[in-house]
Amino acid sequence: MEKERLHTIPLKNIRIHDSFWDKYVRLVKEVLIPYQWDILNDRLEGVETSHCIQNFKIAAGEASGEFGGAVFQDTDVAKWLEAAAYVLETNPDPDLERLADETINLIGRAQGEDGYLNTYFTIKEPGLRWTNLKEGHELYTAGHMIEAAVAYYEATGKEKFLEIVKGMADLICRIFGPEEGKCHGYPGHQEIELALIRLYGVTEKEDYLKLAKYFIDQRGVGENYFLKEERSPRYQQIFPEFAGYDARYSQSHLPVREQTTAEGHAVRAVYMYCAMADLAYYYQEEGLRKACRTLWQDMIKRRMYLTGSIGSSGLLERFTTDYDLPNNCNYSETCASIGLALFGRRMAQMEKDASYMDVAERALYNTVLAGIAMDGKSFFYVNPLEVWPENCMERTSKEHVKPVRQKWFGVACCPPNIARTLASLGQYIYFMDDHTLYVNLYISGNVSAELACGTVEASVVSDLTNTGHVELEFKKEKAPYSYRIALRIPDYVRNYRIRENGAELGGFQLEKGYLYLEAEEDAVKLEIDFEVPAEFVRANPKVREDAGKVALVKGPLVYCLEETDNGANLPAVFADARQEIREEYREDLLGGTTTLKFKGMRLTDHEWQDGALYGARENRFQKAELTAVPYHCWNNRTPGEMLVWMHEKL
Amino acid sequence: MEKERLHTIPLKNIRIHDSFWDKYVRLVKEVLIPYQWDILNDRLEGVETSHCIQNFKIAAGEASGEFGGAVFQDTDVAKWLEAAAYVLETNPDPDLERLADETINLIGRAQGEDGYLNTYFTIKEPGLRWTNLKEGHELYTAGHMIEAAVAYYEATGKEKFLEIVKGMADLICRIFGPEEGKCHGYPGHQEIELALIRLYGVTEKEDYLKLAKYFIDQRGVGENYFLKEERSPRYQQIFPEFAGYDARYSQSHLPVREQTTAEGHAVRAVYMYCAMADLAYYYQEEGLRKACRTLWQDMIKRRMYLTGSIGSSGLLERFTTDYDLPNNCNYSETCASIGLALFGRRMAQMEKDASYMDVAERALYNTVLAGIAMDGKSFFYVNPLEVWPENCMERTSKEHVKPVRQKWFGVACCPPNIARTLASLGQYIYFMDDHTLYVNLYISGNVSAELACGTVEASVVSDLTNTGHVELEFKKEKAPYSYRIALRIPDYVRNYRIRENGAELGGFQLEKGYLYLEAEEDAVKLEIDFEVPAEFVRANPKVREDAGKVALVKGPLVYCLEETDNGANLPAVFADARQEIREEYREDLLGGTTTLKFKGMRLTDHEWQDGALYGARENRFQKAELTAVPYHCWNNRTPGEMLVWMHEKL
Repeated sequence: MEKERLHTIPLKNIRIHDSFWDKYVRLVKEVLIPYQWDILNDRLEGVETSHCIQNFKIAAGEASGEFGGAVFQDTDVAKWLEAAAYVLETNPDPDLERLADETINLIGRAQGEDGYLNTYFTIKEPGLRWTNLKEGHELYTAGHMIEAAVAYYEATGKEKFLEIVKGMADLICRIFGPEEGKCHGYPGHQEIELALIRLYGVTEKEDYLKLAKYFIDQRGVGENYFLKEERSPRYQQIFPEFAGYDARYSQSHLPVREQTTAEGHAVRAVYMYCAMADLAYYYQEEGLRKACRTLWQDMIKRRMYLTGSIGSSGLLERFTTDYDLPNNCNYSETCASIGLALFGRRMAQMEKDASYMDVAERALYNTVLAGIAMDGKSFFYVNPLEVWPENCMERTSKEHVKPVRQKWFGVACCPPNIARTLASLGQYIYFMDDHTLYVNLYISGNVSAELACGTVEASVVSDLTNTGHVELEFKKEKAPYSYRIALRIPDYVRNYRIRENGAELGGFQLEKGYLYLEAEEDAVKLEIDFEVPAEFVRANPKVREDAGKVALVKGPLVYCLEETDNGANLPAVFADARQEIREEYREDLLGGTTTLKFKGMRLTDHEWQDGALYGARENRFQKAELTAVPYHCWNNRTPGEMLVWMHEKL
Repeated sequence: MEKERLHTIPLKNIRIHDSFWDKYVRLVKEVLIPYQWDILNDRLEGVETSHCIQNFKIAAGEASGEFGGAVFQDTDVAKWLEAAAYVLETNPDPDLERLADETINLIGRAQGEDGYLNTYFTIKEPGLRWTNLKEGHELYTAGHMIEAAVAYYEATGKEKFLEIVKGMADLICRIFGPEEGKCHGYPGHQEIELALIRLYGVTEKEDYLKLAKYFIDQRGVGENYFLKEERSPRYQQIFPEFAGYDARYSQSHLPVREQTTAEGHAVRAVYMYCAMADLAYYYQEEGLRKACRTLWQDMIKRRMYLTGSIGSSGLLERFTTDYDLPNNCNYSETCASIGLALFGRRMAQMEKDASYMDVAERALYNTVLAGIAMDGKSFFYVNPLEVWPENCMERTSKEHVKPVRQKWFGVACCPPNIARTLASLGQYIYFMDDHTLYVNLYISGNVSAELACGTVEASVVSDLTNTGHVELEFKKEKAPYSYRIALRIPDYVRNYRIRENGAELGGFQLEKGYLYLEAEEDAVKLEIDFEVPAEFVRANPKVREDAGKVALVKGPLVYCLEETDNGANLPAVFADARQEIREEYREDLLGGTTTLKFKGMRLTDHEWQDGALYGARENRFQKAELTAVPYHCWNNRTPGEMLVWMHEKL
C-alpha cells in the first residue's frame, strides 16, 4: 500500500467552462442557492415547509414556537452552507458570504454551552440526547455541520464556523469512545466518520481521527448497539417503520472488516465506505483497504445500475440481492449515487486506479444529473430506469417512483446534496501528487496545481460527450524540473490517438487505467481523439430484468427513450442492435445534446382489436425509427414514459 | 333481462370422482378441516396462534383472558363451519357434525342478548360497536357467519345456527337503513351484502334483501361515510396504515352504478360485485346489471392475470391501472380469485353466458389451486407468476411474495376460503333451470338435477386436462317429457366432435358459449372429443411486462417452468414458439399430470466470465430442452424459481 494517496486540488485553483457542465454548474450559484435559501426560510409557496432557519432561531431563543421538520432537518442548512462554501471558493460573492456568515452566527447562537448543536433535540427532546442513535440522526447531523464548516474554512479562511463544530466534535469525543464510562455506540446513519476525518484534515487534532476510527471499529461488534439501546427505559421510538429493526439496514450486522456484500440503506453504506477508505489510508491498514475493495467490487459487479445508481428496493432504499436490478420500481436514490462517487473518488485516490473514476463518472453524468431539472428548480429523489407515468400511483408498490421531478421533499436530502456535489465538481476532475497532475474527467476549464516541484497550469478544452476531441495545454514555471501528466483513459474509450506538441504518440502502456506522460517542456499541448462511439450494451445474463434487452451508451452517458420522441408504450419497442446508430448533435435540444437515432420494430395491436388480454395470437410488428436522448436530461420536456433497457430483436 | 337466472344444484345431489380434482377435494375432509380445527383451537405448534375458539369462550364467559388475533378473527371459525357444512352435505360424518354443533352452540353462548355477535368488540371494545365501519370488519364478520349458517342449514336442516345469525342480521337491520335515526353507513369490507342475500334465499325474509340493497345503494353516495366517521369523537383507528384513507380502496369513491373500473382492494371489489349481480337479478335492475357487466369487462380485459388472479399491487392488495400486470411483485390474492369465480358464476347464472365460466374456471384451476399445497398443509396468500426465491426478502419491495407456501397466516383468510371453495366446487360444475341441465366444468362425477319436468341423472367421465375426451350419460325418469342439455364449449377448445348415442352430431350453433341439445331419449350418451392442444399464448401488447414473451396453456391450465426441471435463472430462457410442444403424461409426477416439453435457448455467461455487470458484448445462447408443469402445482417439489411468462425467441 502506497504511503501517499492522490490529493484533490483546492477548488479555488479550478475553473470549469464546459459546454456540457456549465449549464448545471451555473445553476448552483444562480438558482439552487437562492432557491434553497428561500426554502430554508419558508419563503417559497407550494412546497413542504422547511422550518430550518426557524428551528435555529427557536433553539437560539430568538423566536418561539415548536420544532418543525424531521430529526435531521438541520442538515439542509449544513448542506446549503457547504454548497455556498464551494461556490465562494471559486466565485467570491460578498452578498452570499454575508448570508452565510449570518447563518453561521445564528448556528453559533443556537449551540449549547457544552458545544451541543442540534435543533431537534435542543428544542423538542432536550432530555433524550444520545438515547436513540438508531433513529435520532444526531451524529449524522453533526457530520454534515462539520463538513460544511470545513468547506467554509477552506473557502474563506474564516474560523468561526470551524470553532462552532469543533465545540460539537469535542463534545462527541467526550461522550463516545472506548473508555469506560463513555457511550460505546455508533451512528444509526453514518456521516460523522468521514466528517471527523475531514475535520482532522484541517485541524490536525488526532482525537477526531481516532473517534472516526472508533465508530468504524466498534460498528457491528458484539451485541448490536441499536437493539441494546431499544431496551433502555429512556429509549423512545421515532420512526414506526423501524420496528423489528434489521441490523443490515445500517451495516451494523457484522464488524465492517468482515462485511463482503453491500447491504442495507444504500446512502448509509457508501458514506461508511468513504470513511473506511479514508481510515485505511490514514492508518495504512490493509484490512480496511481490503474490505473497501471487496465492497466496491460487490457493488459494481452485482448491485449497481448502468446509470451508476444503487439501492434497488423501493422499500427502505436498500440493497437487496446480487443481480436484483428491476428498472421500474427501484429506489436508486440520488444521494446514494453521490455517495458512490465520493467513495469511488477516495478509492481512486488511494489505489491510484482510474477504474474507480469510471464508476464515479457514470454516477455523476447520469443519476446525479438526472436528480435535478435543467432549470434547477425540481428534483428526483428516486431514479428509475423505466417510467410509466400513469402507473406511478399513490398507495401502490410504485408510489415512491415519481414520473416528474418534485419541487422539494419532506426529507430533502437530495437537492442540497446535488448542490454541494455540483459546486465541488472540481474535486473529481483532477488529482495530484508531488510530481503528477492527474486528469480524471475531461471537462473544459483550467487548473493550477501546486506540485512539489512547482506550479503547473493546465487548460482543457473537451468535447468528450460529442466528438471525443480533447485538447489540453500544460505550462510549468520556467525551472529545471520535470513532472508527469496522468491521463485517465476511460473504460468506454474504444481507441484513442494523442499528439504531443503536434507529434503523434504511441506505444501506450496504461497503469491502472492512467496513461503517464513525462512533461519536460515548459509548455505541453496534448490533442487527444477519444473514440467514444454510441454503442448498444447488454447486461450480464444474471440480471434477469435485462435479459434479452439492450441499452445505449456513448462515453459516460447512458441514453434513454422518451415518449415525446418515440410515442407511448416503450416496452413494446424492439431495438435492432445490428443496425447502425446515427449520432446527431442538436443545438436546439435540451441545451444542446447529441441524440442517437436507430432502427427497430414495435409490437402492434393488430391482432388485438377486440381488446382481449390474452390469446394464441401472432406477434405483429411495424418498423420504428427511434431516437434516444441522454438519461440525465429525461423529463425536461413533455412528461411521459422513459425507458433505458429496450427489448432487442434477437 | 331474463326473469329467471340459472340455479346451482344442491351439493348433496352432486358427487365428484375426478382424477384431476379428487386429490384436492379429498383434502378438505381428510386434511384441511382437521388441520384448521387444530389451528382454531391453538393446538398446532409453529404457526401463529389463532385464538379463535378461545375468543368465543371468553365472549361466552366460559374462559378468561384477552381477545387474541385480528378484528376479523371470528371469520376463520365461520369459514371452517361453512366448509364443514359443504362436506357434510355430500359426506355425512357424525364426528364432524358433532364438532360443528358444539362450535355452533359455543357461538350461540357468545352472542349478546340483542343478537350481537363478534368476539372482538364483545371482549375488547364493547363500547365501540359500529363506530369504525371502515376498519372494524363487524359487518364483514357477520357476513361470513351468515354464509356459514346458511350452508349449515342447507346441509343438515338444523336451524340453530340459522337462528343465531338471524339474531345478528335482525340487529343489523335495526341499526342500519335509510330511515332517520338509523346508521347510514356501509361496510368497510364488503361481504355482508351477499350474505344477507343468501339468508334471504333460505328465510325469504325481505328485510335482509332490502338491507343488502341499501348497503349497495348507499355506498359512495354523497360524502364518503368513512371520512365522516373518522371525525366522530368515538372513532378509534385500528390499522395505522389506513391513515389518509383513499375511498377507492373500498370501492366507496363513487355510487356503485357509476363505477366503470375495478378499483381498490381486490377482494372487497369482487365480493361487492357478487352482491350487485344478485341484486340485479332479484330486483331485475338493468342499471346494476350494466355496472356488473362493465366492471367484469374491465377486470378481464385490462386488470387480470392469465392465471385468473387480480390485484396487481403488492401494497394494499389492490387494482392499479389498466394493463399494469407485473409478474414478480404482484399480489394476486388467493381470496380475490375465489371472489372472481364467485362473481363470474353469478354473472353466468344471470346472463346464461358460458364466457363467464371461462374466467371462473381459469381462476379455479390455476390461482385457487396454487393457493394450497398438494398435501393440504401449506398455503399461498400471494400468487406471483415469476418467483426468484432468494430475492423474496423481508423488508424489501418483494417481502409479500413468499417463495414457499406458508403453514398459516396472521390474517388467515385464504386457507379456509380455499377449503370452502373446494368443498362447494359442485356449485360451479352444473347449473339448471326448469328444463335444462347445464354442464359448465368437465369434472368426472354424478349429478341429480330436479328439473321442473322431472329428475335427470347424469354421470360424467372427463379427461379434459389430458386427452380432452369426455363422456356424459344422462338418464331421465320414464315419462313423456323432454329436457335440454346445455354444454359449455370452453373458449380454449380449438375444435370438437360430439357423438350422441353413437351418432356424430354436427351443425352446432352456440348460444353465448353453450351448446343446447334436446334430450328426448330416456338415456342419452354423449361422447365429446375436445381438442385442447397445448399452446403458446401471448398478451395484449399493452401489457408491458409481457411484451416479447409467451406463456403455455393447455385447456384451463396455465403452465410454468420450475427450476427443478429447467435449472436456475429462468428469465434467461427464450422459448421457440415455432417448435412443437410435446405433451407427456407423467403418472409419477405431482399426483399424475401432463407435462409440456419444448425447445428454446438459454443466454449463457460465456462473454461474462470476468464477472462484469454491463458491457458491449454479444449475446451467446445454448440450446435448451424445456419442461413445463401446470402452474397450480408449482412449489410441490424442491423449492426454487418459477416462471409463467417466458421470453420468446423472435
